[in-house]
Amino acid sequence: MNTYLKDQALRERARRVIPGGMYGHQSAARLPEGFPQFFTRGEGSHVWDADGNEYIDFMCAYGPIVLGHRHAAVEQAAAEQRARGDCFSAPTDRIVELAELLTDLTPHAGWTLFAKNGTDATVYALAVARAHTGRRVVLRAGGAYHGWAPVWQAEGRPGMTAEDTAHQFSYVYNDFESVRAAAEQAGDDLAAILVSAFKHDVGCDQELPDPGFAKGVRELCDATGAVLILDDVRAGFRLHLGGSWATLGIEPDISAYSKAIANGYALAAVAGSDRLRDAAASIFATGSFWFAGVAMAASIATLTTLQTSDALPHMERVGALLRDGLCEQARSHGVGISYTGPVQMPYLIFEGDEPARFKIRRAKLFAGEAAKRGVYLHPSHNWFLCAAHSEDDIVRALEVTDVAFAKVRASFGGS
Amino acid sequence: MNTYLKDQALRERARRVIPGGMYGHQSAARLPEGFPQFFTRGEGSHVWDADGNEYIDFMCAYGPIVLGHRHAAVEQAAAEQRARGDCFSAPTDRIVELAELLTDLTPHAGWTLFAKNGTDATVYALAVARAHTGRRVVLRAGGAYHGWAPVWQAEGRPGMTAEDTAHQFSYVYNDFESVRAAAEQAGDDLAAILVSAFKHDVGCDQELPDPGFAKGVRELCDATGAVLILDDVRAGFRLHLGGSWATLGIEPDISAYSKAIANGYALAAVAGSDRLRDAAASIFATGSFWFAGVAMAASIATLTTLQTSDALPHMERVGALLRDGLCEQARSHGVGISYTGPVQMPYLIFEGDEPARFKIRRAKLFAGEAAKRGVYLHPSHNWFLCAAHSEDDIVRALEVTDVAFAKVRASFGGS
Repeated sequence: MNTYLKDQALRERARRVIPGGMYGHQSAARLPEGFPQFFTRGEGSHVWDADGNEYIDFMCAYGPIVLGHRHAAVEQAAAEQRARGDCFSAPTDRIVELAELLTDLTPHAGWTLFAKNGTDATVYALAVARAHTGRRVVLRAGGAYHGWAPVWQAEGRPGMTAEDTAHQFSYVYNDFESVRAAAEQAGDDLAAILVSAFKHDVGCDQELPDPGFAKGVRELCDATGAVLILDDVRAGFRLHLGGSWATLGIEPDISAYSKAIANGYALAAVAGSDRLRDAAASIFATGSFWFAGVAMAASIATLTTLQTSDALPHMERVGALLRDGLCEQARSHGVGISYTGPVQMPYLIFEGDEPARFKIRRAKLFAGEAAKRGVYLHPSHNWFLCAAHSEDDIVRALEVTDVAFAKVRASFGGS
Repeated sequence: MNTYLKDQALRERARRVIPGGMYGHQSAARLPEGFPQFFTRGEGSHVWDADGNEYIDFMCAYGPIVLGHRHAAVEQAAAEQRARGDCFSAPTDRIVELAELLTDLTPHAGWTLFAKNGTDATVYALAVARAHTGRRVVLRAGGAYHGWAPVWQAEGRPGMTAEDTAHQFSYVYNDFESVRAAAEQAGDDLAAILVSAFKHDVGCDQELPDPGFAKGVRELCDATGAVLILDDVRAGFRLHLGGSWATLGIEPDISAYSKAIANGYALAAVAGSDRLRDAAASIFATGSFWFAGVAMAASIATLTTLQTSDALPHMERVGALLRDGLCEQARSHGVGISYTGPVQMPYLIFEGDEPARFKIRRAKLFAGEAAKRGVYLHPSHNWFLCAAHSEDDIVRALEVTDVAFAKVRASFGGS
């Protein structure tokens, strides 16, 4: 079983100089014992913490790692650009290549531009919609995450004001009637309908988009002139290279991408249809590092590798193996679970836990027991498969989860 | 004289897939002939465009490059971290080292945290001030730039709403009475006073902070409980390692850093005093790449190199040589100029131009003639010196600017 002495020493130092000891989604404060706060090495589907403990990584940096840590083709492309230079007073030629590649991949897109955070992309997309329509209201699903920017914060969060989330109405994902009702509230001020690639909110079962819902929001945008924004930050390039709604046959007007776009290099993108080109050009948005070449070279290599390899079907295959194994284990231990979402980005909820109310004792026990034995998966966030996960990784992970299920059964009984 | 065939071909491709051909502050659309849209190589103080034209780089990526492009110690530190890994589901141990280093360097800071954009840092700082005080209003200088986020946009900009900039009052930089008047408007809702390191607005002479102004805003914050936020994104680590107001003996409550913090690697930081620690911990802010180790390793190497070398006095010395040479040339050509701000970050305005009204024909001619001859400096933004600029660079640059001044004199006459 793992030990965590160096991790504890680093945590103590961190507590002195970092608020709360760590901040944001990578704080381990709410994770169970067994989860390290720091990682020091990664290779393929495996990561190592400060104490040298090795884990099979089923979080993949919360999405960015799609080909595996330190993927050779990506690292080589990045190194070649790095040898020439990265951050200049003008972009490198990589930006043209990448914009051509991304508009080629994305059927609805005539243009694209780049930033650093997924939040940059969603905020930019909203601004484009408002500029294009001359209207203000955005409809968004209650509970959906679109970034940390004030405009996307929940009302009443510390440091925010009521005005930060002005001109927004809420709908229920996959409930088209709720979208229609929200659109009626917006009246002639409806600028945009914002949809996640699928429902991947914290604390509840994941839901794939219902075809009728997707068709409904598309038609509503067409009828009202509103802009359909697809927040594909979390799912983009893991499920489909043409945008996560491609399999539904529904094209958004703007897609926001980040996470997996460059296999861990900091990059985000907004890809939009030609009718929004002038509005996009009218927005003032920029950043010191948005034009840097290395992350774009890494992105070209990432997307090209995804295109030319079996990475996507492979992720689906190993994801299905993991799902089948876990669901069978849960059954055999008599532990009730729901296991939802795309198999490449699954979410596990234990019957008896109430994740919506942050009551996840079973999930914490399960994830903590797994972490102590070298399997890194989150108790209350969807997981991520990557192309480097081997069938052997799944077999080894299932050996550990079998023990973890037994612990849950022993502590909480069957269900 | 330079030719730009490859640059033109890239621009044509870019026009098809990028709104306006390019976006943000790195669009060359408003720059004169002679400015390339793309760079492909950098080394020290020199950069090369797509056609292989070489330039002495006086923009330094608009600030990030402080030690020179591809600085050996920074690249080595980054490569060593890269060999272990970069982007994980938890930060690397680099975050602890960097937070310790930055709180050591910054006298007022008890804590620090990291993001990707300067805008992330200024928005986060405002949220901390609002959370700490439970109030809403921020005072900011008219015309000052604090990032592209909706909260910092000028009223009426495309894609923005009136609510985006709610709870803000304007003051005049270096005019303490105007701050006091704005504070009175805010009444008991005053959360923060936001100040730039110095006045570096586009279109007007730069101004160093007046000691009485700095003392006044500090005392006003102390008297009202408001938070003094120093936006040190542009100037930080180029003028002083302890924050740009250190020489005034005035400590802010929060500093926002980015740009030069990692010599071109994408990183931003917020550094705050201990009394704001709980408020900082209460803010929800995060990003997919905020915890990545390579940029932090680069930052540690950058700040350490700045600490242990003569980089800062060197930048001041070569900056003074450039200023003295340019001012003497302007005199000898009978061309009136103002040359303002710290010599490491100077801003040149030609008498007869009206930069506040975007009438900068002399500046454009001057900068275009310089660019065609291999000296890259901006017609309407402050320039940046870096530690890699040699005295020989300044001599060679002045040979070119002498020709450029002659062209201005020939086209516009004396003043």
